[in-house]
Amino acid sequence: MENLLDHIETPQDLRKLGIEQLPQVCKELRDFIIDESSRNPGHFGASLGTVELTVALHYAFNTPEDRLIWDVGHQAYGHKILTGRKKEFSTNRKFGGLSGFPNPQESDYDSFIAGHSSISISAATGMAIAAKAKGEERQIVAVIGDGALTGGEAFEALDYAGGSKADILVILNDNDMAIDANVGGLHQYLIDVITSKTYNKLRDKTWNFSTRLSQFGPDIRDFFKKMIRGLKSLFFKESNLFESLGFRYFGPIDGHNVFQLTRTLQDIQKIQGPKLLHVVTQKGKGFKPAEEEQTEWHAPRKFDKQTGEMIPLPDKNTIPPKYQEVFGETLLELAQKDKRVMGVTPAMATGCSMNILMKAMPDRAFDVGIAEQHAVTMSAGMAKEGLIPFCNIYSTFMQRAYDQVIHDVALQNLHVIFCLDRAGLVGADGVTHHGLFDIPYMRAVPNMIVGAPLNEKELRNMMYTAYLGSQPFAIRYPRGNGEFLDWKQEMAELPIGKGECLREGKKVAVLTIGHVGNTALKAADKVYTETGKMAGVYNMRWVKPIDKELVQQVARSYNIIITVEDGMLAGGFGSAVLEALQECPFAGKVVRLGINDEFVPHGTQQELYKLCGIDFDGIVSCIENNL
Amino acid sequence: MENLLDHIETPQDLRKLGIEQLPQVCKELRDFIIDESSRNPGHFGASLGTVELTVALHYAFNTPEDRLIWDVGHQAYGHKILTGRKKEFSTNRKFGGLSGFPNPQESDYDSFIAGHSSISISAATGMAIAAKAKGEERQIVAVIGDGALTGGEAFEALDYAGGSKADILVILNDNDMAIDANVGGLHQYLIDVITSKTYNKLRDKTWNFSTRLSQFGPDIRDFFKKMIRGLKSLFFKESNLFESLGFRYFGPIDGHNVFQLTRTLQDIQKIQGPKLLHVVTQKGKGFKPAEEEQTEWHAPRKFDKQTGEMIPLPDKNTIPPKYQEVFGETLLELAQKDKRVMGVTPAMATGCSMNILMKAMPDRAFDVGIAEQHAVTMSAGMAKEGLIPFCNIYSTFMQRAYDQVIHDVALQNLHVIFCLDRAGLVGADGVTHHGLFDIPYMRAVPNMIVGAPLNEKELRNMMYTAYLGSQPFAIRYPRGNGEFLDWKQEMAELPIGKGECLREGKKVAVLTIGHVGNTALKAADKVYTETGKMAGVYNMRWVKPIDKELVQQVARSYNIIITVEDGMLAGGFGSAVLEALQECPFAGKVVRLGINDEFVPHGTQQELYKLCGIDFDGIVSCIENNL
Repeated sequence: MENLLDHIETPQDLRKLGIEQLPQVCKELRDFIIDESSRNPGHFGASLGTVELTVALHYAFNTPEDRLIWDVGHQAYGHKILTGRKKEFSTNRKFGGLSGFPNPQESDYDSFIAGHSSISISAATGMAIAAKAKGEERQIVAVIGDGALTGGEAFEALDYAGGSKADILVILNDNDMAIDANVGGLHQYLIDVITSKTYNKLRDKTWNFSTRLSQFGPDIRDFFKKMIRGLKSLFFKESNLFESLGFRYFGPIDGHNVFQLTRTLQDIQKIQGPKLLHVVTQKGKGFKPAEEEQTEWHAPRKFDKQTGEMIPLPDKNTIPPKYQEVFGETLLELAQKDKRVMGVTPAMATGCSMNILMKAMPDRAFDVGIAEQHAVTMSAGMAKEGLIPFCNIYSTFMQRAYDQVIHDVALQNLHVIFCLDRAGLVGADGVTHHGLFDIPYMRAVPNMIVGAPLNEKELRNMMYTAYLGSQPFAIRYPRGNGEFLDWKQEMAELPIGKGECLREGKKVAVLTIGHVGNTALKAADKVYTETGKMAGVYNMRWVKPIDKELVQQVARSYNIIITVEDGMLAGGFGSAVLEALQECPFAGKVVRLGINDEFVPHGTQQELYKLCGIDFDGIVSCIENNL
Repeated sequence: MENLLDHIETPQDLRKLGIEQLPQVCKELRDFIIDESSRNPGHFGASLGTVELTVALHYAFNTPEDRLIWDVGHQAYGHKILTGRKKEFSTNRKFGGLSGFPNPQESDYDSFIAGHSSISISAATGMAIAAKAKGEERQIVAVIGDGALTGGEAFEALDYAGGSKADILVILNDNDMAIDANVGGLHQYLIDVITSKTYNKLRDKTWNFSTRLSQFGPDIRDFFKKMIRGLKSLFFKESNLFESLGFRYFGPIDGHNVFQLTRTLQDIQKIQGPKLLHVVTQKGKGFKPAEEEQTEWHAPRKFDKQTGEMIPLPDKNTIPPKYQEVFGETLLELAQKDKRVMGVTPAMATGCSMNILMKAMPDRAFDVGIAEQHAVTMSAGMAKEGLIPFCNIYSTFMQRAYDQVIHDVALQNLHVIFCLDRAGLVGADGVTHHGLFDIPYMRAVPNMIVGAPLNEKELRNMMYTAYLGSQPFAIRYPRGNGEFLDWKQEMAELPIGKGECLREGKKVAVLTIGHVGNTALKAADKVYTETGKMAGVYNMRWVKPIDKELVQQVARSYNIIITVEDGMLAGGFGSAVLEALQECPFAGKVVRLGINDEFVPHGTQQELYKLCGIDFDGIVSCIENNL
């Protein structure tokens, strides 16, 4: 049979096909995704689950004139392949290549950015307002996962769009998963709807009434049975949660039946006002291992597409652990030590390794779903009553709960320990996922201690120090591996607000925060080896309170200070050093290395450090230029 | 009749009374609130609406052992008066006096902070986890308004608490209002529930079936009628929106019937798991003018408690306008000039004066309810399609949408103009409401222009400049009045990134941002009058991009630089000046005036400027000490 996908450059080509050809397109698209992903790792499971939906959407709608917003971009590989990016798809997530998420700068078919979840309905509502204001007729479609739906903004948007009768279509892509298993009342509700439990409960109870009907003769129960069937659609229309908010609800329908999907989408677009179509899909659909182990196959390593075997992980005993693993193990140890210690994660239990605690002590770790705001305030409530919650949120997602950090935690000076995972440059996830803002936004907050460990041993000790404390802490650490095989040592308390000298030197001092200190140290040693001149290297350890004494001592001993951080320079760590320097006479120069006033694309972490001038070579030349 | 309130110091005293005495307590409490508020303005309407609920709660629950969380604190005046703070209530919102919102530092009865909305259910859930972990038996009650319920975090918490079966009671205080009229699908749903419309719709449709029942004889319809009545409770149980999320729903009940409230609360506390009691109240209840004009009486000026007449506002022609008014009028003018200009507000239409546009051009301004995240992303969607939204959010509430500012607006470089109202020290609303973090958190964001006008003429011009631009802008301006009677001049474009010299001087230069520049100017003039020495004064106007040329020029001409800002010093405007100074040789001293690393309490704005050292006297002495 002729390959159809080969002839599809854009959805225009797809729309020339007969509807009966769509299953073949789906098969080819799925194979293409499996093939590519086996060689070039990415977000796999969610995109396999949306193959039929993607084909149906581009077939039924006039994209890009009709707007299509993916929430989140995990689902959108098929979309990218059908919209002019098939040939470049092998560059997905690579430096200079395609972005792993939809991005309007990449294609007109990407109607909106889509790295963080739960925003699509808001964006669609704004677009609907614009279409109306400009007198333009178009369909606006938001595809949101059931995981993303737990994020509060999605509800804000459903509420507003439902109330204001915005002309949008929300497609609920219900695969019953976030990255980990989905949680919450809504999750249970959706299962109930799909399995008709809600309906059945009503029917059963109503049926009880009907037993009393027997007085009216035998036929009446048959009649009543029929009536109850009629009640089913009535019941869903009037009682459905989304209908409550002002949406017209359709579904649930099978998200892997491309005919039904296409016809439903064609019909539904004729209806005005806010509409929600509930589509049931399976994450990893069409690739057995991924269907069975959905969390593992959310974003797998390279794998054999025949056997489903992933390339083996390196032997744990030969490479230093991930920071994530150290966090997870240390949290478990602290929880074993003190029953007040708890873990809270917004849907990242596996990603941040809180699953270690969750498995060992299930009643001590809480996955609240994609709900960062709730995670922070719930932690505050726990701390207010004497518990010691470790609330682990990726740096980039902590932006979602900034107000709660200030208002609910810091203002009440509560002992919540924020662990900001994936701080700094995260690599392939790219521009939407880098954790670059946390130093400026956290250090402005009173009562907050802000630290970043030099390595995974220090992460352990910093967590322990925070545990021993009594006020809010934010500990930022990177994605990736640490430095030591023997990291698991007895925990030791660190003096808060005290940095350390790693190398004494002359003329130039390098002040660092966090893991980039390791690079700075190697860079200074290299310069020494080459020139015989040693720059001082200081691991400052705490952004707030910053070690003013140490800064002043450095100011007295050196002429030039280089600061290094993997975060925004504006208001960042280097800026904190400048502030501290105002309290002592320092007539020398300060050079700040870090992220300039620009968003950073995707690539390997090494490529991005280089791009930003905070890699080994970058620091070497900065030291050399100033020595 | 003996006054009962006189003998109630704490809820223990209240609980000694017979239930039949509660109406009298309510009456006295209401009179007390009216009397006090007539002399000492505060949040009036919401607290009048919760008099019976407050009395019933403290009567039915064992506070403070049982936890009571008010969301938001607007409602809690009665609570404060019944919990040991009656005598001090006349100090409400005054410097050194009671806080206008619940605050645990003030009383054990204030279980959680409550200045920002929509957090109570999350906090209650955390407290329930703690109670369970510690084996403590207690009731945990969150009282949340229907306005606060539109905030996404409330939904995140309902979803999580419902799914995890948290042992909490949520009381939905449904007065059908935010500060302005409430909006959204949920709002309409609650009205439907109260008026039984949802139930009636089901009944009507079901009734149609029953017409076909006549074949079974005349008695059957009577029977069916009874059955339908039975369906009512069944229907609400199974179909209710809150039940969908896993809550047991009770109500709606009359929030002004203290007997029914008390008995319901006594009964309901015996039930395990997540429960929601829907209570219908009226904002302003018991004070006619406030019942009729709820927005006006949300937080009225001093008034005559007999006639309801408020003290008159000063004549508009004799004092400079509020910044808010200038924003509102200018937005209307821009909207009249260009049909792409739109307004977006999260429930602050009156507060920020967007009601001016809303009234004149109702289809050009959008009140989305308490939903800052949605407001920002919806604005992004509008801008993506070519509109020019002015999204007005109080500085303190913008913290709620920081991620959306970065991810949805700045990353896509969209032309959304954020107007950060009430930036700086806000006065009586106090610690939860000051807008002190926006300079650090906004200036770290790439593509974002950050400006603060010196006065209301400059606000006008800055809005116009932002309108002419093509990228994201954040314009911060204070609560309160401007400087001029003749503010309404032709709008002029300001050069972005260019400050201005207000006074040439010697030795000391004062660099200011925003309206504090007026105080700095007066201070410098005063010092000149007294000493003959003139300090330079510079209105920097833009935090980002900061005017580096001007900073360098200042660095060449002066020995000492004083920076003045009404925001956090850590990473703030002064810090931006330090960063700019690194690019030129400056061996002098920099003194940064602004908010130190502490939360600031409530008081008049003048009192707080003084407390923070950025009032006239503070700046005068700083200049004198350095000249």
